[in-house]
Amino acid sequence: MRSFFKVKRAEDIFESLRDIEPLGTESVHITGALDRILARDIVSGEDLPGFQRCTVDGYALAAKDTFGASENLPTPFTVVGEVRMGEIPDFGLRRGECAQIPTGGMLPEGADAVVMIEYSQMVEDGVVEISRPVSPLENVIQPDDDVKRGQVVLHKGTPVRPQDLGIFAGLGIGHVDVFTKPRAAIISTGEEIVDIGQKPKAGQIRDINSYTLGGLCIKSGAEPIYLGITRDRFEDLRVLVGKGISQADVVLLSGGSSVGEKDFALDAFLSLEEVEIVAHGVSISPGKPTIIARKGNKTLWGLPGHPVSAMIIFDVFIRYLLGRLSGLSNPPEYSSHALEAELDRNVESASGREDYIRVKLAHREDRWLATPILGKSGLISTMVEADGIIRIDMNTEGLYRGEKVKVRLF
Amino acid sequence: MRSFFKVKRAEDIFESLRDIEPLGTESVHITGALDRILARDIVSGEDLPGFQRCTVDGYALAAKDTFGASENLPTPFTVVGEVRMGEIPDFGLRRGECAQIPTGGMLPEGADAVVMIEYSQMVEDGVVEISRPVSPLENVIQPDDDVKRGQVVLHKGTPVRPQDLGIFAGLGIGHVDVFTKPRAAIISTGEEIVDIGQKPKAGQIRDINSYTLGGLCIKSGAEPIYLGITRDRFEDLRVLVGKGISQADVVLLSGGSSVGEKDFALDAFLSLEEVEIVAHGVSISPGKPTIIARKGNKTLWGLPGHPVSAMIIFDVFIRYLLGRLSGLSNPPEYSSHALEAELDRNVESASGREDYIRVKLAHREDRWLATPILGKSGLISTMVEADGIIRIDMNTEGLYRGEKVKVRLF
Repeated sequence: MRSFFKVKRAEDIFESLRDIEPLGTESVHITGALDRILARDIVSGEDLPGFQRCTVDGYALAAKDTFGASENLPTPFTVVGEVRMGEIPDFGLRRGECAQIPTGGMLPEGADAVVMIEYSQMVEDGVVEISRPVSPLENVIQPDDDVKRGQVVLHKGTPVRPQDLGIFAGLGIGHVDVFTKPRAAIISTGEEIVDIGQKPKAGQIRDINSYTLGGLCIKSGAEPIYLGITRDRFEDLRVLVGKGISQADVVLLSGGSSVGEKDFALDAFLSLEEVEIVAHGVSISPGKPTIIARKGNKTLWGLPGHPVSAMIIFDVFIRYLLGRLSGLSNPPEYSSHALEAELDRNVESASGREDYIRVKLAHREDRWLATPILGKSGLISTMVEADGIIRIDMNTEGLYRGEKVKVRLF
Repeated sequence: MRSFFKVKRAEDIFESLRDIEPLGTESVHITGALDRILARDIVSGEDLPGFQRCTVDGYALAAKDTFGASENLPTPFTVVGEVRMGEIPDFGLRRGECAQIPTGGMLPEGADAVVMIEYSQMVEDGVVEISRPVSPLENVIQPDDDVKRGQVVLHKGTPVRPQDLGIFAGLGIGHVDVFTKPRAAIISTGEEIVDIGQKPKAGQIRDINSYTLGGLCIKSGAEPIYLGITRDRFEDLRVLVGKGISQADVVLLSGGSSVGEKDFALDAFLSLEEVEIVAHGVSISPGKPTIIARKGNKTLWGLPGHPVSAMIIFDVFIRYLLGRLSGLSNPPEYSSHALEAELDRNVESASGREDYIRVKLAHREDRWLATPILGKSGLISTMVEADGIIRIDMNTEGLYRGEKVKVRLF
């Protein structure tokens, strides 16, 4: 079973994740729907606002009655009523008549426009002079101006934003169907790893990856399930990986996946039924010693123990994977939401692999400068110092100072 | 009390919010600390990793013993032991000796470098030949390479990112002090407004602003308190505004703040003790009819009823205010996180006010094109269609097609 060793390129790994399907759906109240992913198109069942509504304080009237009105020769109108907010006017207008109307009020029958109060003058009780003509529909929202009945207002596969909550509310949609959040089981392994509550002895180190990976999961809309630390022994790993795959959609095991002697992560994955190894090694740096396995729609990741490497693999692949599981129609690939910056020193890179370089950003005279942070991938402080990462393609041997780069912020 | 009417410029409003103080602090476990704002500098109490740690699988040895080693003339070493993960080596090295060591292992006494396994060959039991020299400290992390004891690793006033959780964990910091989340009481007013569960009659409209403002609060790290809808009457408003100010740090009342007859929001604010009016009218569009009041460190906002106007005022000012209340050392001003795009048609603007224009983005040949969305500020659908907003400064009368603009995404 251990006879293969397949280092895969990034694009092949993306390819092997493209058939991952979104999970189930659930109905949530709109006050809890922010950032969730819509599981259906939202189709309006009605017109919005549903009635002819005015957008200013003023006088409702027939536009044609104002034609010719000017400051020198204002047109007099008889005020026959006052529109009350939230009520249907119980009167209509005839030629030469108008009605007082507040912003948001419903136009009475016979009116097709509103003159702003600024262009009117009360000359005697019940009579105003209008000093400016209006066009039909001026200062008026038509019954279906905001949304038309039957219109698709939002599409399946998009995350819910604050303004989307507004359109749900406007249409009386109190609950929406969203995709279930993916769950990610997180396991750290290594003989030297101790819990954060413990004082490490010399040679030991506290568990870092559980927390960085948990935070990255939350940022990607997934729910982390912290399964803790296990020794790097086949039997222990097998039990915990089995627990993870039964509770979660993704298993993130970090540590224990180098090609050294104690490579029990691979064995633990293979001990599950119907598991297929997608990659044993990835041609990106840092992050090469990564194992990826699939069991149907679920995936298992043997991530490097180095915190930086594990974070880079998450950022490149697992963010995309969680996007697919979440039902996003455009799951985030590496270059999405990148900021353009200028490299402020040369960076070397080995050909034949993708290199991911941590950078720090500074703003200078209306452009961004990216300074590479060099430092071993075991040093979490280099990620704390960094504002983002840049990618150097497989066939590029380095980048020069002054070159434009795309920085993925994190 | 109603005798003033002070329209303020945006910069004056920012100025009047600069002394808003962050709220209290609380201690949270790091699994719940993501995106919270640090209330203290984080100072390391120890070195990380705390011991001399190797970064590859190989042989630990004294670098100087390898000088002169080459493929043609490899140097033989006696293997005197094996370092076990997580344990202190119970042996030291003398001249010409080495020890097997796994990635992450602790260097034994007498070793100052590690040769990768690729450059070694076992020639007989207990003897390896090394075919490449290493420098002192090569493939080694020093005890304080990641973090030095006493070092400030993270600063007060910054939001917690996934990598920051990693450094907390590495240093054994299970709980961190963060600023308390601000609470925002949300009230909608207007005779025509009905709850989303209700079928509006002609002339009525469902409450949109409670939900868009609630979503914006959550996005800004604040907790919304939904106080519901009230009629636009002084007594009703007074009671609900009083309830809001007692429960929350910010009161967001929308509707009822035009300069029309029923301007009860201002009266309701003034009915509170020790309230000072900051602005009655703001010289930005949309959003002009906004009332801002302060009661000590708390603020009250009378926002326009039009959903777009209320969202723009939130985006420009209240996001900044919540950032200050949250303790952010750099609260988000308008231009932060803007994306540069090219306008694809002319836009007019009135001089003497800031104009905020909704835009839709499209990516074309490595640049972003921004198309203005024209539409009345009462139409929430225009915000759903938009990807962001651009600002046209007070002294600019318009922008031309092809001009560079900064788009604030939302």
